[in-house]
Parts: sequence; structure tokens; C-alpha cells
Amino acid sequence: MRDLSQDSRWLSINTATVRRQRGAEVPLARIIDQCAEHGIRAISPWRDQVAAAGLDAVARQLRALDMQLSGYCRGGFYPAADAAGLRAALDDNRRAIDEAKALDAPCLVLVVGALPGALEGKPAYKSIARARGEVRDGIAASLEYARSVGMPLAIEPLHPMQAADRACINTLEHALDLCDELDPDRTSMLGVALDAYHCWWDPKLEAQTARAGRDRLLAYHVCDWLTPTRDLLSDRGMMGDGVIELRQLRGWVEAAGYAGHCEVEIFSTLDWWQRDGDETLRICIERHRSVV
Amino acid sequence: MRDLSQDSRWLSINTATVRRQRGAEVPLARIIDQCAEHGIRAISPWRDQVAAAGLDAVARQLRALDMQLSGYCRGGFYPAADAAGLRAALDDNRRAIDEAKALDAPCLVLVVGALPGALEGKPAYKSIARARGEVRDGIAASLEYARSVGMPLAIEPLHPMQAADRACINTLEHALDLCDELDPDRTSMLGVALDAYHCWWDPKLEAQTARAGRDRLLAYHVCDWLTPTRDLLSDRGMMGDGVIELRQLRGWVEAAGYAGHCEVEIFSTLDWWQRDGDETLRICIERHRSVV
Repeated sequence: MRDLSQDSRWLSINTATVRRQRGAEVPLARIIDQCAEHGIRAISPWRDQVAAAGLDAVARQLRALDMQLSGYCRGGFYPAADAAGLRAALDDNRRAIDEAKALDAPCLVLVVGALPGALEGKPAYKSIARARGEVRDGIAASLEYARSVGMPLAIEPLHPMQAADRACINTLEHALDLCDELDPDRTSMLGVALDAYHCWWDPKLEAQTARAGRDRLLAYHVCDWLTPTRDLLSDRGMMGDGVIELRQLRGWVEAAGYAGHCEVEIFSTLDWWQRDGDETLRICIERHRSVV
Repeated sequence: MRDLSQDSRWLSINTATVRRQRGAEVPLARIIDQCAEHGIRAISPWRDQVAAAGLDAVARQLRALDMQLSGYCRGGFYPAADAAGLRAALDDNRRAIDEAKALDAPCLVLVVGALPGALEGKPAYKSIARARGEVRDGIAASLEYARSVGMPLAIEPLHPMQAADRACINTLEHALDLCDELDPDRTSMLGVALDAYHCWWDPKLEAQTARAGRDRLLAYHVCDWLTPTRDLLSDRGMMGDGVIELRQLRGWVEAAGYAGHCEVEIFSTLDWWQRDGDETLRICIERHRSVV
């Protein structure tokens, strides 16, 4: 297992972690500069932030700072109420793949989607089996294009509490079953983004992480599960402040062959997004060394 | 599959559903009378409500009204910070079994517990594997006593969002693995309480329900998953108001051999607990006929 205590080489900051600072939205260019000022060498930006900053400008800034991506957030959201919606989702994922390529990302993270309209409180249908079928077909189509340009796709199983509205793939086992179906030859073009927050509770996590192996483990995300958790989406904790056994989990991930970044992704309306961004980054660095 | 549209014979009301009415706590004796007034023939009461009302008084009232139990809520909460705590949990579960027996319940529902102290925001330790071991040992001990008095134990897998603080058994598969370990002869003394709310998202639900079979399916709970869900504990929906395919799930449960009650268990601080209890019961009856 790697010793992370001496440097931050394998730390990446998902830009959602500091997208709000002291309660206010911060532009991506500033976030990237802040990360560089703290000696952080990798980030994972979100598409809406990149769109606001301009894709070319972000690519230039990253090159100038010699900064890498640990992933690109995010593609997915395949299910739709009708055929036009399904086609639009495929087109949008194609653009996401192109953007990931332009930014030289190691993978495009897929939050696959669930019941269409559920995020807005108006699900167009209730069949999670149908949503899962649309996700499978959508990923199959995206994978064809992703292969042609050489951009790996990383399915991120989300916590089951987000099964209705954000992602209907909710366990590592389910994600790996889908990988086996769509990429039986384990070409490294389809795998998973394993997020400690979403998967820590799973009694099969150790076995499924081993099953994933180096070919399928494309990204590793960390934060912590707080007790109590006050919100289903944005009450994630800083590593060390919750109950996830992060060191044990990284041990499993590395035993399976993963040797990439540990990406910190914290959505926290009530706590971290209210704090000073430099404080948040400083504590991310400390906890990455002492806890992750 | 049974036709529930003509009567309410197989409807049971978990008394949590109407424990608060118009925002105020209602005594169990009144809840039982209300259920009887609505022609409801079965309930599942909570231990704290029974303790407040007096065990003998509740037993007498139920007999006088010829009302059955669909289960007794609840035993469990086995993990503890130290040996004294573990012993206290076993003693408490023994009392819960005795109470279930006095009320002629078909089973004692087990919410097994998780990281001790986490419910109060102060987890005594972080190892979910340790908690799972303490749960296994605790159920094994309780089962010995339960067998001696003839009271089946029903493990209730809770939604993974409650893995840290309420129950570290979070899938039907995990619960059934434990049943197989502790009751390999399928004696009907150890099984599961399958709650639609906790398990609806699980891609293995159909297969695991079939695996459970008649011997292991001791109780079936219904409510609905709302989009959005505003609270991790008490924002459950009335059947039909959310996204769970309840008719399909009951089909799986009955195909596996279950022929008991459908127990309505709704925790709803913001909605149903603010309403008139008679309105809530009337709608439970309607939805049981039209949606469950």
C-alpha cells in the first residue's frame, strides 16, 4: 500500500469541493489557480464549470500549470421519457467525451441517471428496470464512440438513496456486471469510479473491489459519511470526520491494482461550502496524508 | 396473486403511521380503537407505545377487539461499545421476545443496530465489520431463547442510508445469508421482514425474494419512496405517492409463498404526522386496495 503521508502527488480535488466558498460560487479558473497555489497537481472539473470558463481556456490553463485530471465530471443521465430524449442524451454524452478528450482526462465519469424527471419531482415513469435497460443501451452506444477516440468510461455506482433520481446503478457488483456485459474482453475502455461515500456500507465491497481489478478501477473518490447525515445529497464529510474506514478501503483498492489519484469530492451546503476555500484545501491536504 | 381490492383483511397498520396526529403524540389505546373503528383487523405496535400503555392492558384490548398483530416492533440494536452493553442488549431482546409472546405476535422484528453511539452522533467505533459480527452473535443468542418460547425473529434489512446508525444489515441478500448461517435447517424461527421502502432499489430483489421463500418471509411492509426525499428517516410516502412498483413487488413476495399481511409503516414528520389520523387511516385503506 502506498505511503501518502509525505506528499500530495496522488491527491486530486474534485472541483465541486470548493465550487462554493464562503457561500458564493467561485469560477473554475480561480479554483484551478488556488489548487496550484497549494501544490495540488490534479483536479476533476465539472462540465458546467468548464462550459462557463470555456473549454479551450481551461485546457490552456491546465497545460500552463502542468496540472492533470483524475477524471471528468460527468456524462450519463441516459434514461428519458421518449425517443427524442434518449437521442439527446446520447448526443450530450458524445460532447462530454469530446470535452474529456480535449482536457486529456483519464476517464469520463458516468452518473448514469435514473427515473427521468424524478430529479424535478415529476418522474415520467416508475419502472427502475426500464431505466436500467435505457442505461445499458446508452452506455453501449457511448462506448462505441468512446473507443473510437480512446476515452475510457467510468460508471459511478451511486448510493441507493439516489436510485430514484440520479443513478439506478447502486452497487459495485451491479456496475461490474454491466461492465462484463458490455466489455467482456476487459479492454480498459469501460470500468468504474469507486466512491467511498456511495459504497462504504456494502458487505460485498471487498470482494467486488478485488473482482474489479486494475482494468476496471478507473477512479477512486473519497470523503466521509457523517452521523447524523442531514441531507441526502450535500451533507458529505471531510475525510476523518465520519465513519468510513478509508485506510482499509484504499488498501482493498490498491490490492486490486489501482495506483491512481485519490479524488476528494465533498458536497457540503451547510459546512465546507460556507468556509474559506484555502482552509478547505489545506485540510484536504492534511487529511489526505493522515486519514486517506 | 391475491385480490386485495375488495376488503382490508390483509391490511395491517404499523402504529408508527398514526403515532402522531395533527402533530401531537396519540396514546396506543386510542390508535387501536381508531383502527377498529375503521374495520382494520391487524396492527404492529412499537415497544415504547406498549410500555406506556401497559402490556397487559394492550393484550386485553387486542383480545376484546379480536385484533391480530402482523409483527412486534422491535428488537435488535445489538452492537455496543463494551461487554456490559452487549449483555444489556441481549437482556433487552429477551424482554422484547416475552412481550411479543404476551401479545401473540407472529414475529419480533429486528432492527439489528449498527455503530454503537452513532445515532447520538458519537460512534464508539467505526468498524462496520465488528458491528456485523456483534449482530450475528446477538441474533444467535436471541434465537436460542426465541426457539424455546416459539417466537420467530424477523431480521429487517434497512436502507443503506441507515447503515451507520440503525442497522448494518442493508440488503435482503445479506439478511438471508445470516439466516442461512444461523438457521440452516430453515425452521421458520428466523427470517426477514421485507420492507418495500428499504429494498425497492435493489437489482437483486426479485431473485432474493424468491430465495427467501415462505419459510423466511415473516413480514411485508409497505409505504413509498418520494422524489424528492427530504429526510433520511422520516419522509416516507403514502403508497402510490412515490416511485416504488408496489404491485410488482407484492407479486414477487406472494410468488415466493408469502400469504400474510401488508403492513403500512409511514414515518412522516412533515406530512402524514401533521394530518388527521382518521384521514390517514382512510387513505391507507384506499391505497391498500388500489395500489398495494
